Amino acid sequence: MRKQNHPIFSAILLVFFTAASAADKTPAFTRADLAAAATLRERALSDSTPYQLVESLTTEVGPRPAGSSGDKAAVAWALREMKRLGFANVRTIEATVPHWVRGEAQFAVLAPFPQDMPTLALGGSVGTADEGIEADVVMVKDLAALAALPAGTVKDRIVFFTNRMARSQDGSGYVNAVPVRVQGASAAAALGASAIVIRSIGTSSGRFPHTGAMRYTATAPRIPAVAISNIDADALERQFASGKTVRVRLRSSSRDLPPALSANVVGEIPGTDRANEIVILGAHLDSWDPGVGAIDDGTGVAIMMGVANLIKGLDVKPRRTIRVVLFANEEFGTSGSQAYLAAHQADAASHVLGFEADFGTGPVWRLSSRVNPAQLPVVDEIYRALAPLKLARGGNEARGGADLDGWSKLGMPILEPGLDGTKYFDVHHTANDTMDQVDPQALRQAVAAFATSVWLGSQFSGSWERVTEAKPPRR
Amino acid sequence: MRKQNHPIFSAILLVFFTAASAADKTPAFTRADLAAAATLRERALSDSTPYQLVESLTTEVGPRPAGSSGDKAAVAWALREMKRLGFANVRTIEATVPHWVRGEAQFAVLAPFPQDMPTLALGGSVGTADEGIEADVVMVKDLAALAALPAGTVKDRIVFFTNRMARSQDGSGYVNAVPVRVQGASAAAALGASAIVIRSIGTSSGRFPHTGAMRYTATAPRIPAVAISNIDADALERQFASGKTVRVRLRSSSRDLPPALSANVVGEIPGTDRANEIVILGAHLDSWDPGVGAIDDGTGVAIMMGVANLIKGLDVKPRRTIRVVLFANEEFGTSGSQAYLAAHQADAASHVLGFEADFGTGPVWRLSSRVNPAQLPVVDEIYRALAPLKLARGGNEARGGADLDGWSKLGMPILEPGLDGTKYFDVHHTANDTMDQVDPQALRQAVAAFATSVWLGSQFSGSWERVTEAKPPRR
Repeated sequence: MRKQNHPIFSAILLVFFTAASAADKTPAFTRADLAAAATLRERALSDSTPYQLVESLTTEVGPRPAGSSGDKAAVAWALREMKRLGFANVRTIEATVPHWVRGEAQFAVLAPFPQDMPTLALGGSVGTADEGIEADVVMVKDLAALAALPAGTVKDRIVFFTNRMARSQDGSGYVNAVPVRVQGASAAAALGASAIVIRSIGTSSGRFPHTGAMRYTATAPRIPAVAISNIDADALERQFASGKTVRVRLRSSSRDLPPALSANVVGEIPGTDRANEIVILGAHLDSWDPGVGAIDDGTGVAIMMGVANLIKGLDVKPRRTIRVVLFANEEFGTSGSQAYLAAHQADAASHVLGFEADFGTGPVWRLSSRVNPAQLPVVDEIYRALAPLKLARGGNEARGGADLDGWSKLGMPILEPGLDGTKYFDVHHTANDTMDQVDPQALRQAVAAFATSVWLGSQFSGSWERVTEAKPPRR
Repeated sequence: MRKQNHPIFSAILLVFFTAASAADKTPAFTRADLAAAATLRERALSDSTPYQLVESLTTEVGPRPAGSSGDKAAVAWALREMKRLGFANVRTIEATVPHWVRGEAQFAVLAPFPQDMPTLALGGSVGTADEGIEADVVMVKDLAALAALPAGTVKDRIVFFTNRMARSQDGSGYVNAVPVRVQGASAAAALGASAIVIRSIGTSSGRFPHTGAMRYTATAPRIPAVAISNIDADALERQFASGKTVRVRLRSSSRDLPPALSANVVGEIPGTDRANEIVILGAHLDSWDPGVGAIDDGTGVAIMMGVANLIKGLDVKPRRTIRVVLFANEEFGTSGSQAYLAAHQADAASHVLGFEADFGTGPVWRLSSRVNPAQLPVVDEIYRALAPLKLARGGNEARGGADLDGWSKLGMPILEPGLDGTKYFDVHHTANDTMDQVDPQALRQAVAAFATSVWLGSQFSGSWERVTEAKPPRR
């Protein structure tokens, strides 16, 4: 039924598109482009290749933090799989990556009520001496509350940040909550604290701490930083509710090793008449180590490889070159995408349009963009081609993900099929980022949305213009 | 509204009860008994004491495996709380308990695809040497499949049991699946295996291994036994799906220390004219160590203490003595309940009726029993008094829980308000058995069901008769 209906439906849309584009005479997309988009969408909705790719990556490689043996295995896996799928120009672009080792961490409440709590060091945190750090705890909500404390309050204490991340579809809850994780240690150290423990930046209701990157400032002492689960943060708050002094011992053997060599892995579906224009499809190959990186970012890898594979399978070839870039080390400072950017300074202008998938398994719920406002009608046409997927129409404030940040700053247009993040932070950066979290149906829908958008982005009859407006602040 | 309706409703029921009991002339329950039952039910549905008790136990004591410092703290907690609530005859009955220490366990797949998997030693398992055990793995479904293997198949191998526990309301899925955990190590060792790893006996969809007790036979070598989560069992099965040999390394520092002294904690609401008849309310004070024992069995402790507290708060006193017994060491061989039974050999006959709560947070979904069939009409009357809670009517094959097993074998009648176990095994024996798993509303309903049943059990105008039929096999 659905397949039979689609040609008719596409024809109706075509009439509409043609009318909409009448002002500039040249339609943005040909009838054949739109028909191919519909074909891609349909094929994506029954394609099991992306799911199999995540399954293979998580089973055969598993955890792959920057610098680890898993990181190397992931690069080999990506090269092998891109070649197996028949991508062109499969190659690596080397990147130096930090090599931080998690080690073991223990967090023990000593008073008023002794209890151990599962903990994870934050990525980049220094460790402790073997005997650990034993100190009274000062509880604060967030960075502002810390700054408002009377002088000396946290001296030689461990600071416990309690702020709870809000659940949201678009990830805004994460953006609002994450500064504590990134900046909390140095903020507390500047006030004399000896360590910090944070309520995990995540929405897990299981007893999983969420790790993630932190950064030290140049001036404050480097103190250890760990996370406990939401469940244990609640339990620790209950200990404070007793009115008694809370004392804990924190131990961690996390440590830095010398930087290591990793690589971005690149593969292409070559374009035809506009082959020197690149539509870049970014996802990241590295993952955090407690889980196996299924949704962060195995599904992103699978979406982008799946999209390119579907386009490769069409009878027609894309006008522009579709380039999949699986970036090294997104999680720990994006040195992979920076290396890619540095390697492409000379031909930066050839990167005309970008997509990034780094927000879980799907489904896609809206289409956003960051294009020259004059070209918004083109985005509108792509949005109409996505109509069977029933997406919302987002705004023009998309930023892409972290790996396209540098390109976005250069004004490269971004199309953003928005992955639904409502449940993403339930498992993000936890041991529970595992294969069972991948929803096959949502993943197929996401591939359909990306494939349609990528294809039309590559077929656009005009030229994608650089965005000259200042980049919007991150929400 | 509800409160105003109840006296009328109770009156209507009374007429019915009186008619039902007309055959033997004496009503099982007086009008006042039934009115008090309704009062108890209503009060229970708005009583926050049980929830506060679990919160206090999990926060102030936390994990309390037999022999641990938490075990001692739990005994002190129970004595303090029973006294605070004004129970009579608060005392301990000492019990010798095993003192097994979990230590650390690591399970690493070495080939074909290296990955670490979170693991927990099964309770009672021996550990390994520091270097661990490295061996190829033989995958079998269950004990029957192991027994069917050709001779020599598992010699010097690690046996991986894959059988998945089925979800069920009444716990039958657990009963069917758990023999692998209890007997698997010795069954495999008898065939020459060097260790076993089991798919957790539990329904968790998170990455939590479920621990739980295992037992060695006298004849087979003692080999280490660990569990991995359902998620990791799936991942390990995917490694087998490659067709390649799966090789793992297992390390565990679990070990036995000399047995320790613990105690059952007892408190009473004294009876009146039948004070020498005991209605025993059992739950267990110990817990496994990865979590904090919120639903296993903090809620059982809270239900039984809450029920006694509500009965104590009535204007009328119970006819029979309500005795709450918080048993030591249910998890690891029920030595606590055995010690209680041994201490009461002389007055065993005075224990006329038993209740046990060891199946989570509720709600109660049915009323079952094990009574002399001639007294089933009394259970029917109690069931009718529970009508506002809309329970199902279970059969007469109840066994009570593990702690009343000895009493049940002696023929003591059991009334069993059946706690709904559908979700219980999602967190049972995992690190995720934490306070947030306690559903306040379900807990109140469960207390209401137990309070009504316990009260009427204590007020029954006749004498509870010993059950003479053979105890039914465990489903």
